[in-house]
Amino acid sequence: MNDERMMPSFAIGVDLGGTNMRIAAVEETGRQLETICADTDLKRGRDSVIHEMCDAIQTLADKFSPTHRLLGTGVGIPGIIEMESGMVRAAANLPGWNDYPVKAEIQRRLGTPVILENDANCAALGEKWIGAGSDVDNLCMVTLGTGVGGAFIFHGKLWHGMIGMAGEIGHMTVAPDGPPCACGNRGCLEQYASASAVKRMVAEAIADGKAPELARAMSIDSEFGAKIVFQYALQGDVTAQHIFETVGWALGVVLSGLIDALNLPMYVIGGGVSSAWEAFSPALFVELKRRSIVFRAGNSPQSHLLQKNTVVTRALLGSEAGLLGAARLPMLFGNSGSALNQAQTPQLTHCH
Amino acid sequence: MNDERMMPSFAIGVDLGGTNMRIAAVEETGRQLETICADTDLKRGRDSVIHEMCDAIQTLADKFSPTHRLLGTGVGIPGIIEMESGMVRAAANLPGWNDYPVKAEIQRRLGTPVILENDANCAALGEKWIGAGSDVDNLCMVTLGTGVGGAFIFHGKLWHGMIGMAGEIGHMTVAPDGPPCACGNRGCLEQYASASAVKRMVAEAIADGKAPELARAMSIDSEFGAKIVFQYALQGDVTAQHIFETVGWALGVVLSGLIDALNLPMYVIGGGVSSAWEAFSPALFVELKRRSIVFRAGNSPQSHLLQKNTVVTRALLGSEAGLLGAARLPMLFGNSGSALNQAQTPQLTHCH
Repeated sequence: MNDERMMPSFAIGVDLGGTNMRIAAVEETGRQLETICADTDLKRGRDSVIHEMCDAIQTLADKFSPTHRLLGTGVGIPGIIEMESGMVRAAANLPGWNDYPVKAEIQRRLGTPVILENDANCAALGEKWIGAGSDVDNLCMVTLGTGVGGAFIFHGKLWHGMIGMAGEIGHMTVAPDGPPCACGNRGCLEQYASASAVKRMVAEAIADGKAPELARAMSIDSEFGAKIVFQYALQGDVTAQHIFETVGWALGVVLSGLIDALNLPMYVIGGGVSSAWEAFSPALFVELKRRSIVFRAGNSPQSHLLQKNTVVTRALLGSEAGLLGAARLPMLFGNSGSALNQAQTPQLTHCH
Repeated sequence: MNDERMMPSFAIGVDLGGTNMRIAAVEETGRQLETICADTDLKRGRDSVIHEMCDAIQTLADKFSPTHRLLGTGVGIPGIIEMESGMVRAAANLPGWNDYPVKAEIQRRLGTPVILENDANCAALGEKWIGAGSDVDNLCMVTLGTGVGGAFIFHGKLWHGMIGMAGEIGHMTVAPDGPPCACGNRGCLEQYASASAVKRMVAEAIADGKAPELARAMSIDSEFGAKIVFQYALQGDVTAQHIFETVGWALGVVLSGLIDALNLPMYVIGGGVSSAWEAFSPALFVELKRRSIVFRAGNSPQSHLLQKNTVVTRALLGSEAGLLGAARLPMLFGNSGSALNQAQTPQLTHCH
């Protein structure tokens, strides 16, 4: 195809996590043309990770540009991004990235503009685009991962707040005297509903001698984490079940507050821990019904309020939400990636 | 003046509270032409209150219409208003008003459209118009009165949420196992930071034998309430001081969460209890600094974030905010009050 206007278009999305990184070429339909995976080998350092990311972006740009028009590149980062400067602030799971001009550095390497966005914001965009939120204009997203992130979409657009820091739902207080959080607060949602919190609660239960089964599982499995605790909960392990009830309880306390404050039509729960939905959602809904007058008003069978339910639901896109949302950024905001520099094709593992 | 287009315009605002009601004719500059006060004598019943309200509206309409163009009437109500139907839901301080078609009834009596709005939303509109928020486009308002209300303005406009119930900040949870609230939740902000909560905490301190001075004050003063407790705090009464520290602590827990979630530029504290600002704000700011990463990011002297502080401030309009905001409604949304029926001039007390 020679006429670029006749080509289908695509964008490149990057989902940078604390343990791995995915880079995808995505069509405007949401179809992933190709997705590249790479370890986020933090030990090799920030520059190595950025180098690898840029190589993968370049690979995908080179591969699909002959047949597709490249709309641009969006990068999701697990940290607070200062929108005006493109600096990363407070990226707890990316040591060494604080106060680093990530956007400028990626752009320098690629020779083209990129759009940087917080990873929870990307997940919200993805869910709004082709996930749970495709029918609503306003939603709140909570991502339960290593940490807990959040995002708001108002009138179909991401809400960044005054300095791009909106969505720090993980640091809202569940219990004022709860466990200390690295952020300086006590009893943050992140201390109850993240994968790290699940592991901490397991360790506490083991220390109390209450979880021999989980202790054994932890000792034999180097990959032991929230996913395995969820399996134990499904198999009837009472301690594991109780831990996920705590996840649901804490999420219920915070979501009740947000529902009462904002009366949004939808709250979407995503991130890795959301795959344990069956284990934590019953306790979550108990809290919502008990605590939130707005939830009850819209969700009561006797409601006069035109049966406009508050929907609290798990993410539909699972772990793809952030990647797809990152690719969505240039589709919404447009930056040209056509000036990508030519680079050698690097060696990268493709996702299965 | 015969040419109506040449006349200055005005609107009528109503601030309906649990104990009194004010009705004002207000120019587009914010100047109050005249303000009428009346007891909200709830014992005489809902219909009597509405009758008195409509009489006062009519009086002001008749008085100023010869020289001013009437833009319409806005009514602030301390309850949850279902915007589509104009019904009042869950008006805790207006017994007998639940599920009542207030808007339809006022319109029937006046023969002209009125705009109904939640009282905290009115206060936010007033503060945005000519108060603390006149320079920002986004703000959160918290009103500490008999109960605790709240409101959000995004992009200069009131945020109603899906079914008009947004802003129920008073029922956000401070402490999950705290005192029970009439709403069904436990540990609501309203249980710590309302005038009723101040009185409850005084009663608890007296019952514990910790507050002989306050006990004496309560026994001799039939008007004993949060205002007098504030006077005692100013005079050094340790129990009274501690109670307002609890007010500030609770407000700090909830506001920290909202600041982290929404990153708004301004949070305005109004309502009667906000006049005790000196007594509760030190504890409030201690909590904000301790708990909110977003507050600290913008308010640190070392901040890179362009020194964009999160402003947490008391309302500038005091108890006038709700009244002025109610009058602001028809200025913003326009409804013609020129078809007001003629009625006998009623007897009403004018405010001093």
